[in-house]
Amino acid sequence: MSQPYPSVLLEKAVGEFSKLPGIGRKTAMRLVLHLLRQDTAMVDAFSSAISTLKHEVKYCRVCHNISDTEVCRICANPARDTATVCVVENIRDVMAVENTQQFRGLYHVLGGVISPMDGIGPSDLQIDSLVERVKGGGVKEVILALSPTMEGDTTNFYIFRKLAPYPDVKVTLIARGIAMGDELEYADEVTLGRSIANRIVFTGNL
Amino acid sequence: MSQPYPSVLLEKAVGEFSKLPGIGRKTAMRLVLHLLRQDTAMVDAFSSAISTLKHEVKYCRVCHNISDTEVCRICANPARDTATVCVVENIRDVMAVENTQQFRGLYHVLGGVISPMDGIGPSDLQIDSLVERVKGGGVKEVILALSPTMEGDTTNFYIFRKLAPYPDVKVTLIARGIAMGDELEYADEVTLGRSIANRIVFTGNL
Repeated sequence: MSQPYPSVLLEKAVGEFSKLPGIGRKTAMRLVLHLLRQDTAMVDAFSSAISTLKHEVKYCRVCHNISDTEVCRICANPARDTATVCVVENIRDVMAVENTQQFRGLYHVLGGVISPMDGIGPSDLQIDSLVERVKGGGVKEVILALSPTMEGDTTNFYIFRKLAPYPDVKVTLIARGIAMGDELEYADEVTLGRSIANRIVFTGNL
Repeated sequence: MSQPYPSVLLEKAVGEFSKLPGIGRKTAMRLVLHLLRQDTAMVDAFSSAISTLKHEVKYCRVCHNISDTEVCRICANPARDTATVCVVENIRDVMAVENTQQFRGLYHVLGGVISPMDGIGPSDLQIDSLVERVKGGGVKEVILALSPTMEGDTTNFYIFRKLAPYPDVKVTLIARGIAMGDELEYADEVTLGRSIANRIVFTGNL
């Protein structure tokens, strides 16, 4: 087949878009042609937003969340409870927990979970800095809020052991069980089994 | 709800991505975080490919296909048959026809089809330039290769009437019928009806 793209510039742009996860060459083509139909200012805004983000983004030196400043908005907020640290895998999980409006403590973003299959070990994650943070004092509870997967649980156990030298710090795990709105008959056996084993006293309130 | 994004730069980049068609805020977030994990050179390549395309792209002054040069590679190719012009809606259709390797003529890219609902009239399209091209001489056949939709057919009729003053130029329409591999029983009635009405003599070859 001869060169299928009528323009090298077009081919390059489509090539760059199709490197993104879940974007094939057909979708990339559609997106690029959409951008081509927009006016130059809009395309420049798109292009510079990406580039500026990459060049100027910072990571909070306390919790490693993405931030525009040295210390992020959450860590710098005097109204937050500094004694409680919620350990999450990534930035999206911070946003998910924040959206619940149920948590007033601080975060610690690991940047991933231990996954030997993907070559990710404890040293690739912000685990040492978590231990330092606990060692520094002031933390009373560490909430492990990782996904209940094999990798998440491996990481939970690893952190649990790393924090064993600090018995004054309570290590807790987010509750696992049947999700709200789920049909019991479709729940997997492990989840259902654990949710029975870990049943709580019903006080008349939900 | 308080400001959900931990960074204004992040929010801006996600906002730009989610302006693209078919990309919601969740997907935009996933794509932006993917780019953030890449090294700076890769992100700069992405950003500049889009921006360069928009700033430097040209449209062929003969057929209006996208091009890196004043006259596109197809129009400039001496091996192509300049007497046959295939009229298509957009750049992707040029690529689709090229991929069949069945067509050795030239193209004329309209840039859309007549669609009063979307406010697109004949003057928004490259129809006058098609008529000029035919008027200039040398064209023996104009193949209308628009989608068989109401808008496509409206455009077909419009072009047909515009070319009526040039009776030496044959105006043809791409064949419509049951698509290869389609089950007859699932074909819509209009398509099936027309494919019977427009049946061709079977010579033993397909």
